[in-house]
Amino acid sequence: MAFSVAVAGASGYAGGELLRLLAEHPEFEVRTVTAHSNAGQLLIDVQPHLRSLAHLTLVDTSPETLAGHDVVFLALPHGASGALTAHLPAETLVVDCGADHRLESESDWAAFYGGDYYGAWTYGVPELPVAGGTQRSRLRGSRRIAAPGCNASTVALALAPGIRAGVIEPEDIVAVLAVGPSGAGKSLRRPNLASEVLGSANPYAVGGGHRHIPEIQQSLRWAGAANPTISFTPVIVPMSRGILCTATARLVPGTSAAAVRAAWEEAYANEPFVHVLPEGRFPRTSDVLGANTALIGLAVDEAAGRVVTITAVDNLVKGTAGAAIQSANLSLGLPETTGLSTNGVAP
Amino acid sequence: MAFSVAVAGASGYAGGELLRLLAEHPEFEVRTVTAHSNAGQLLIDVQPHLRSLAHLTLVDTSPETLAGHDVVFLALPHGASGALTAHLPAETLVVDCGADHRLESESDWAAFYGGDYYGAWTYGVPELPVAGGTQRSRLRGSRRIAAPGCNASTVALALAPGIRAGVIEPEDIVAVLAVGPSGAGKSLRRPNLASEVLGSANPYAVGGGHRHIPEIQQSLRWAGAANPTISFTPVIVPMSRGILCTATARLVPGTSAAAVRAAWEEAYANEPFVHVLPEGRFPRTSDVLGANTALIGLAVDEAAGRVVTITAVDNLVKGTAGAAIQSANLSLGLPETTGLSTNGVAP
Amino acid sequence: MAFSVAVAGASGYAGGELLRLLAEHPEFEVRTVTAHSNAGQLLIDVQPHLRSLAHLTLVDTSPETLAGHDVVFLALPHGASGALTAHLPAETLVVDCGADHRLESESDWAAFYGGDYYGAWTYGVPELPVAGGTQRSRLRGSRRIAAPGCNASTVALALAPGIRAGVIEPEDIVAVLAVGPSGAGKSLRRPNLASEVLGSANPYAVGGGHRHIPEIQQSLRWAGAANPTISFTPVIVPMSRGILCTATARLVPGTSAAAVRAAWEEAYANEPFVHVLPEGRFPRTSDVLGANTALIGLAVDEAAGRVVTITAVDNLVKGTAGAAIQSANLSLGLPETTGLSTNGVAP
Amino acid sequence: MAFSVAVAGASGYAGGELLRLLAEHPEFEVRTVTAHSNAGQLLIDVQPHLRSLAHLTLVDTSPETLAGHDVVFLALPHGASGALTAHLPAETLVVDCGADHRLESESDWAAFYGGDYYGAWTYGVPELPVAGGTQRSRLRGSRRIAAPGCNASTVALALAPGIRAGVIEPEDIVAVLAVGPSGAGKSLRRPNLASEVLGSANPYAVGGGHRHIPEIQQSLRWAGAANPTISFTPVIVPMSRGILCTATARLVPGTSAAAVRAAWEEAYANEPFVHVLPEGRFPRTSDVLGANTALIGLAVDEAAGRVVTITAVDNLVKGTAGAAIQSANLSLGLPETTGLSTNGVAP
Repeated sequence: MAFSVAVAGASGYAGGELLRLLAEHPEFEVRTVTAHSNAGQLLIDVQPHLRSLAHLTLVDTSPETLAGHDVVFLALPHGASGALTAHLPAETLVVDCGADHRLESESDWAAFYGGDYYGAWTYGVPELPVAGGTQRSRLRGSRRIAAPGCNASTVALALAPGIRAGVIEPEDIVAVLAVGPSGAGKSLRRPNLASEVLGSANPYAVGGGHRHIPEIQQSLRWAGAANPTISFTPVIVPMSRGILCTATARLVPGTSAAAVRAAWEEAYANEPFVHVLPEGRFPRTSDVLGANTALIGLAVDEAAGRVVTITAVDNLVKGTAGAAIQSANLSLGLPETTGLSTNGVAP
Repeated sequence: MAFSVAVAGASGYAGGELLRLLAEHPEFEVRTVTAHSNAGQLLIDVQPHLRSLAHLTLVDTSPETLAGHDVVFLALPHGASGALTAHLPAETLVVDCGADHRLESESDWAAFYGGDYYGAWTYGVPELPVAGGTQRSRLRGSRRIAAPGCNASTVALALAPGIRAGVIEPEDIVAVLAVGPSGAGKSLRRPNLASEVLGSANPYAVGGGHRHIPEIQQSLRWAGAANPTISFTPVIVPMSRGILCTATARLVPGTSAAAVRAAWEEAYANEPFVHVLPEGRFPRTSDVLGANTALIGLAVDEAAGRVVTITAVDNLVKGTAGAAIQSANLSLGLPETTGLSTNGVAP
Repeated sequence: MAFSVAVAGASGYAGGELLRLLAEHPEFEVRTVTAHSNAGQLLIDVQPHLRSLAHLTLVDTSPETLAGHDVVFLALPHGASGALTAHLPAETLVVDCGADHRLESESDWAAFYGGDYYGAWTYGVPELPVAGGTQRSRLRGSRRIAAPGCNASTVALALAPGIRAGVIEPEDIVAVLAVGPSGAGKSLRRPNLASEVLGSANPYAVGGGHRHIPEIQQSLRWAGAANPTISFTPVIVPMSRGILCTATARLVPGTSAAAVRAAWEEAYANEPFVHVLPEGRFPRTSDVLGANTALIGLAVDEAAGRVVTITAVDNLVKGTAGAAIQSANLSLGLPETTGLSTNGVAP
Repeated sequence: MAFSVAVAGASGYAGGELLRLLAEHPEFEVRTVTAHSNAGQLLIDVQPHLRSLAHLTLVDTSPETLAGHDVVFLALPHGASGALTAHLPAETLVVDCGADHRLESESDWAAFYGGDYYGAWTYGVPELPVAGGTQRSRLRGSRRIAAPGCNASTVALALAPGIRAGVIEPEDIVAVLAVGPSGAGKSLRRPNLASEVLGSANPYAVGGGHRHIPEIQQSLRWAGAANPTISFTPVIVPMSRGILCTATARLVPGTSAAAVRAAWEEAYANEPFVHVLPEGRFPRTSDVLGANTALIGLAVDEAAGRVVTITAVDNLVKGTAGAAIQSANLSLGLPETTGLSTNGVAP
């Protein structure tokens, strides 16, 4: 009865999180796990936390090993999915957790990534407020889904309600994110070393160069912004996972605080995974660790003329693997919440 | 030959850091250390890292125990300094690390702190660019000094050069700070517990209520801003000390990136403790751990129309105790750098 | 169909973890959550990570509020359970996560805890090797269960196989544990502050005074030790949860390394939650974060004449709340693994 | 007047710490800093925390670049020093922070390291109790010094007093150490990644294979042990630096607790950098962060028949660079404490 699943890039952090969630999912059965340099090893030797999948062995990532599954999840470095998935049948559900299929603008792709451009797939953030509804309707039945960038979807979820409702200005957004290093993957680079991260807060991609910026702008355009601009700064902090996003936008003059709150509460009123906290409450990343939940706290700073949003997500779950599975549920007509928890692992 | 020193509030984190720095200072001799509930204990039992001061015993905090010293440093909760210092002779140098004497505006005091207002003392950030110079000149010879708020002085140092030079707009500043929990002191409140802080990023005082906001505005007015406004959000992250401040302001239209960089480089060209990093480089808090150094990275984000500054300081040193001692050096005519290190303890 | 459940002490860390696990358990329905000073508040305001239980309100902890449930879980400070549970009917399953009912020896209770002694209940570590079997058989049908101390059960699971098999000596055991601060609960004491824990390793209860020592000895006596002695040292390290236990015992002279390994592998061969890792592999606490899994690595150090075991558990799950639920499953005749995950949340 | 100094391996963590300490040392002047792949870069670009040495440029590590200095400090991977230092004149003080010259036994070298053996130099732990005195006397005037392994010197300092005094047995020592990852250096290996270390406790080299074991045994033999045996287990915990060593040994039967305490207190009574804490007190690693201090807490566990020592050091200071400089001070006839602080950077 269950859908057969392959996970490509199963030795990385995003791949591991896909597998952790899939292992608890009643409608998916993981048949194949692939890797590059780790092919041939037992999965449990590379991902020792995945005890229930100890029977799986990593195989090479190739069109052949990925063929013959109902669902293929890809957790590969950007640039690796495009050629690979061209060979998969159209009826196979393919969910790419990499960046290759997120951007509709080829010029954005060229400016921020470069290399071959393979076109955009359905963007995997179901709750995203877009003109006249949410992204959810586009995901139903889609067989090609691009899971979001973790930072990008967090900023978009934080601000799209206000933009769609016309209560904040889409120009001059400022977002600063405290993020855990797991978002950077297992790449062996000096800034990813424990001694560099412990006891320190380290910014990167400062000043407009971060690859998630065009992805945020794309989402905000869907929400109604003509020409959104954003100052975006991520800061690595010493927690393995989590994003605490402070995203602010200028209040449209004359808007009441009540109207602001109403915009967000209406956007997410019936969402199982996105919650707007009551007045005066703000989330912490530990509240959502391991969960597919985004928590949003909201304040109107009259003196500064800005709406301030604080959003907490687990970068590996709601930011990546959870969004992928939630989108796959929608694609396949399963209940959207199947296999996904709303409760964080805290403390 | 050395100046005799008393430190009030010696059992707290700020008091401990004052003592750590004073212990290495060749011109100061710590004679008296005071505390409240810990009075009567050996200092080493409360501050076990201060081995070289193991001979000192904590005494009560009172006008009597503080009398008779050349210099008195106060590291007390806000509201505690005012009455206490009224009894000290005018020729005694008093440096208050609390908030009581930072604000020139009694209405700001009433709005953000409340309780009795004791008036402003000389603000202890020597390098702060003010109209026509720096704050340094006001500190020379002053006998009443208010050491800065750690977050406030960081934001002010980050942006004052651009405001004084007219290259950034003082309205619509946005600052988001990743900060260690030591700034909150030893108070026994649930948000300060290790289990709440480890593995999490936790915002506080969101939306315009943080007490450092009027202090920042005051500094920026000294730098030439008529009516600065700031959206200010601190986020507690799991490192014991440090501030990584992302402060952005709108670029004044038509300003070149070179003019922006020149504003900062000129402001701090000869400063021993504040350094502007080269193009493309940004600081980390571990670079300044234990040091009296502020490192500033600078970018112009043309697409966003904003100047982005990243500033790293140790909240307990450059943000508090180091600023206090640097200011005391100036007050007493000692070389400004005496007893203060520029090198961080990293990794 | 589901069993109705009350959780006493629902505002603490152990209570929160019970609720996190119970929320995913298909056979339990949480009806009542109790607290002391937080009574009257919404659970979600005290435990903001438990989104799926946002409908619950904390009530007072009393015999009345706990009455009328099929199962009562207690997560209270030691000394609080005894009087409270005397009023509950014998057919109610009561699982105490506190220490009140763990020790069979009243003199041990008096020496290490003191205060009224209420007698021992069935000890809630199903896999514990005891003479002729495991602790599991005693738990089936029991209606009074004492969930274990997290450190105590970890050391017992680590060493009981070798003691029962006669391959290690029960005298002169040495155990040193790196533990997260969540085991100390939410008590507002200075050593629990984030600034004290971050960036530091802090020992406590050194030299033989830790309250888990008699509990370990009791377990090892069940495994066949006549007079076990143990040097036990816990060290708080900067991770919110987890225990990494290094427990060593002297190799019985003449025992082969193969016999040692066989003792452990046979003891846990069919266990769903306790796994012995292959030769040369050792666990990390992140491998079991959030999971009801204990991972044991094993080495024979011939030169030192000792068997070295490394055991990783999540102190709040396998060490407390998971053990409680696993034991409750057994008591009620449910499949033992119901509602419990074996997969850790890593990285 | 100052001694001219070269530091080889200046781009690593140990090299960086040597430079941080040398920068504050009044009798040393750093003239040359060398590296391998980073040669040609500014030191400040590789070690951005060393502001006061911003004028230095890294050059290649070679006999030529190291020639012509009064003192050469080496912080190189093991195996790299031997050939290099053969070319330096006998009157140059050479302090090797690597392992190449620590072991007197060529067979130990072959068993635990392998490769060419270059012979032992004077071991750089001045306070180490040896038969009839301390290691200090051997260091005076020595021109070839082997700075200790950080774990090895910590265990040796912890236990040598009791062995020399005959109050503990040198067989069946057990030591478990919580250590920060900086001891592993900047090598780009997966276990050193931040995501692997954060929120986790990770053992390594379990079961008798750690290279510091023969070094510990050598020190304990100098203290009088005929045939010391040790079970040694290091555990990486999420703090950048620090060692919290729990080292236990069997109490010699019939020895009083007072005699035990006296052994340690007498051994370190006049030491500036090694302190025995009062009864009932135990150190934390943050107490010694950045300091050249070793703090030892001591307990006699009568029930377990063991003496338990808890020792805190900063692995990069007292464990490596501080020991190197302290030894160099002795070699050159400078006051032993010159340029070294006893106060930790806490919290």
